[in-house]
Amino acid sequence: MARQSERRRRGGGRAGAAARRGTAVIEQMPWRLPVNIDRPVEPLTEEGVQAIHDAAMQILEKAGICFLNEEALGIFRDAGCSVDDDIVRMDRDFVMEMVGRAPDRFTITPRNPDHEIIVGGPYMLFGNVSSPPNYWDLEIGRKVPGTREACANLLKLTQYFNCIHFAGGYPVEPVDIHASIRHLDVLFDKLTLTDKAMHAYSLGKERVEDVMEMVRIAGGLSEEEFQARPRMYTNINSTSPLKHDQPMIDGCLRMIRRGQAVVVTPFTLAGAMAPVTMAGAVAQSIAEALSAIALFQYVRPGAPCAIGTFTSNVDMKSGAPAFGTPEYMRSTQMTGQMARFYGLPLRSSGCCAANVPDGQAMWETSNSLWAAIQSGTNMVYHAAGWLEGGLIASPEKFVMDCELLQQIQRYMEPEVFATGREDLAVDAIREVGHNGHFFGIQHTQDRYSKAFYQPFLSDWRNFEAWEAAGAVWTPERAHHLFKQIIAEFEAPPMDDAIREELADFVARRKAEGGAPTDF
Amino acid sequence: MARQSERRRRGGGRAGAAARRGTAVIEQMPWRLPVNIDRPVEPLTEEGVQAIHDAAMQILEKAGICFLNEEALGIFRDAGCSVDDDIVRMDRDFVMEMVGRAPDRFTITPRNPDHEIIVGGPYMLFGNVSSPPNYWDLEIGRKVPGTREACANLLKLTQYFNCIHFAGGYPVEPVDIHASIRHLDVLFDKLTLTDKAMHAYSLGKERVEDVMEMVRIAGGLSEEEFQARPRMYTNINSTSPLKHDQPMIDGCLRMIRRGQAVVVTPFTLAGAMAPVTMAGAVAQSIAEALSAIALFQYVRPGAPCAIGTFTSNVDMKSGAPAFGTPEYMRSTQMTGQMARFYGLPLRSSGCCAANVPDGQAMWETSNSLWAAIQSGTNMVYHAAGWLEGGLIASPEKFVMDCELLQQIQRYMEPEVFATGREDLAVDAIREVGHNGHFFGIQHTQDRYSKAFYQPFLSDWRNFEAWEAAGAVWTPERAHHLFKQIIAEFEAPPMDDAIREELADFVARRKAEGGAPTDF
Repeated sequence: MARQSERRRRGGGRAGAAARRGTAVIEQMPWRLPVNIDRPVEPLTEEGVQAIHDAAMQILEKAGICFLNEEALGIFRDAGCSVDDDIVRMDRDFVMEMVGRAPDRFTITPRNPDHEIIVGGPYMLFGNVSSPPNYWDLEIGRKVPGTREACANLLKLTQYFNCIHFAGGYPVEPVDIHASIRHLDVLFDKLTLTDKAMHAYSLGKERVEDVMEMVRIAGGLSEEEFQARPRMYTNINSTSPLKHDQPMIDGCLRMIRRGQAVVVTPFTLAGAMAPVTMAGAVAQSIAEALSAIALFQYVRPGAPCAIGTFTSNVDMKSGAPAFGTPEYMRSTQMTGQMARFYGLPLRSSGCCAANVPDGQAMWETSNSLWAAIQSGTNMVYHAAGWLEGGLIASPEKFVMDCELLQQIQRYMEPEVFATGREDLAVDAIREVGHNGHFFGIQHTQDRYSKAFYQPFLSDWRNFEAWEAAGAVWTPERAHHLFKQIIAEFEAPPMDDAIREELADFVARRKAEGGAPTDF
Repeated sequence: MARQSERRRRGGGRAGAAARRGTAVIEQMPWRLPVNIDRPVEPLTEEGVQAIHDAAMQILEKAGICFLNEEALGIFRDAGCSVDDDIVRMDRDFVMEMVGRAPDRFTITPRNPDHEIIVGGPYMLFGNVSSPPNYWDLEIGRKVPGTREACANLLKLTQYFNCIHFAGGYPVEPVDIHASIRHLDVLFDKLTLTDKAMHAYSLGKERVEDVMEMVRIAGGLSEEEFQARPRMYTNINSTSPLKHDQPMIDGCLRMIRRGQAVVVTPFTLAGAMAPVTMAGAVAQSIAEALSAIALFQYVRPGAPCAIGTFTSNVDMKSGAPAFGTPEYMRSTQMTGQMARFYGLPLRSSGCCAANVPDGQAMWETSNSLWAAIQSGTNMVYHAAGWLEGGLIASPEKFVMDCELLQQIQRYMEPEVFATGREDLAVDAIREVGHNGHFFGIQHTQDRYSKAFYQPFLSDWRNFEAWEAAGAVWTPERAHHLFKQIIAEFEAPPMDDAIREELADFVARRKAEGGAPTDF
């Protein structure tokens, strides 16, 4: 497979030109922002929404949230909240006033403006898996630490697939790069290999500021232009229960002050860092998220903020986190109801507990993705490539997930269920009558080539044809596609001068020692 | 594995007793009729519903439906419909009057009354895969013709899993039994290995009458008792486009006259036997189904009838049917809206095009099952064990699907999203505060063991623990469970006298030559 791709690449311009048209390896669906037209699934009654809201407000008012960030404590004091040591208690009027300032949708404009995204409203966007420390692929066949090369390959998939709308965190942690300069190298790779909306980790001021600077440079923007609209975002997790740590809040404050977007995603694992009851875990998650969003809105009214959910349950046998479970699905749906109640865009995930890209991986991921659809999720993190509860990134899983994401994109297209006169086809049905078939008639011929979703990975041949073609199971097919996509990948265009400026920035910051690693 | 199970079986009573309690091999969820509380997904506007209804009525009024059944033609003539040769045209008033007679829900009571099912309303029931001619399992490793043994094993799974509510057609065609007597042997196996609601194929009067007789005997029922309420059902397909064949209609007429239930499921593959546009394929499917249901309601007002959908699309490359596609999902949802419009229970399927139980099989099946939930489907046919567009039955897939069905069952349980005071857990959150965890507190201890769904097949351990346990992928885990379930299976109790009467019936009907095979 790799040899074949190599041959093609050496073979000259045709494959290259095809790749530039995005049609080399597979025919994929066009870039677009899917519009989720399904009415959300709402397990909570109106009283249920009020009950969770009230519980969240009680948590904020009585238990309070610990902010391990001096600046934040000062701001809350300034805002008139009760600050006792590092515990902040805020009353519901303040929280609701602040949350009311947040927009219900916002844009993020990456260096390629064609890849601008709208976060919020009916839009449903997908991003790559973020932050696994480990990597697995079929060729290696075991779990190995992430490398810069593996990370770059997954970034190429992120760029290649039109159904991936934004770049998340590192698709795998390149632990072969020292932590002090990792963000510089990976962001250089990210910004040169992709042109989609970019993420910065809130892990110390140097990282956040460096990444903002690199995104500004890559976009060829002045500081004023950079700040004029969101060009990137950060995603933070609280340290559940009821705590926000120093660097995450610091990073967000730096981001919003320069006009960038933040996503606040508590990781409330029911029975571990949150109550064993799902409504309780959701209420705690809401409280943790709103406390940070209130801070950001006080500092910068109207700052683009999204609320994230990562409420799931643990395996009762091992204590390991489980994902895509019935409890996960209902929690995500409940949080969707709460996000609409607060008027905030919602982030959830495409996740699973499975260790390899097999049937379990796909039913769990499928459950997660359906929960995202059902909850009205706007940003689906980890939508491609995630295994082992987020501890492994896998290119096969990435390709398999993209097949599923394309199907969701197609599912959202209104022409699938259009009921115009020609769609109802009463004349065609009369024409064919009781003994014919529809293959040859004009109504079919006119529509056939675009009538149905065409998968790039699913094998729809019968058993015999599939067997004759080598009896290849899905992960192996995905592996072949992965190798081919990487072999024929062409990076999106970037001005040489900008590329040089980026490289110079990286070199200078490396010479300065990068970022401290004592976090 | 097999050896181990064998040892256990020989080992004596403990495993046997455990099996009788249903807890031997796995701990599964209890038998219950899941209540689908999700609001259906409705892609059609009210005008869209009217448009499809009007198209279906136009088809019935103008194109007409071909009935290759003399008796049906006579009945339609008697009812005042236009009968031209074998084409029946019926006006919408007649159709709607007849369809209005059908109940919106009905029961089926099998020989074990604890396994009575309610078809319709909010209930969502699952049945085994039906009618594949071929069989595949991991041990055999290739596609082979079905046998009586394979069929019996799949029947054991049908009985074993509480999440399977009714027995469909033969879970695999036992082609090692001559077609003339196949129904006698398989029904003997079905009725002795399972005690769930039973199906009869409408393939000639002998088969239907024999199966009804065997169900009557197995239930220890007089003819009057048998007819007093539905004890079984048949499922028929139309011969799309716009045709019903002789034996299927004949079988249904025999069934409803003895008070039994029928499901009418057109198989309208868009672009082949139906228009390439999904709304057209759905309209045609509705017309075909309603024409038969109208007939049955004319003959026996109030006869228990369900409407089925099997509208999908073909692979544009090979012409092979595809399942679990975006088009399939929307068609199923649209048909759900139409079924509610007509007040009829709905049947759909858990299906896929994949040839082996891998990732593709599970994302396609997952899509099918979510479409069933979203459409308000009442009977999910083929919900466990289906591969290759229904041409292969697989025990691994059966076990994998049951894991998914259990998760759906759990998903439907209202306690997952309960918002009572104790669920909101505000006190527990205050108790744990900002530095603790929820593992040890009383609120967790009181609820922990039943708080979350516990899978029997998903492996939620981390990679290292999973690897240490042999790095077993999902299909292989399913295979092991399958072998163990079969090894420890104990048939449901049946009186010796009834068993003997059944055997005598089979012997007598075999001696008489069984059923003709010239269909």
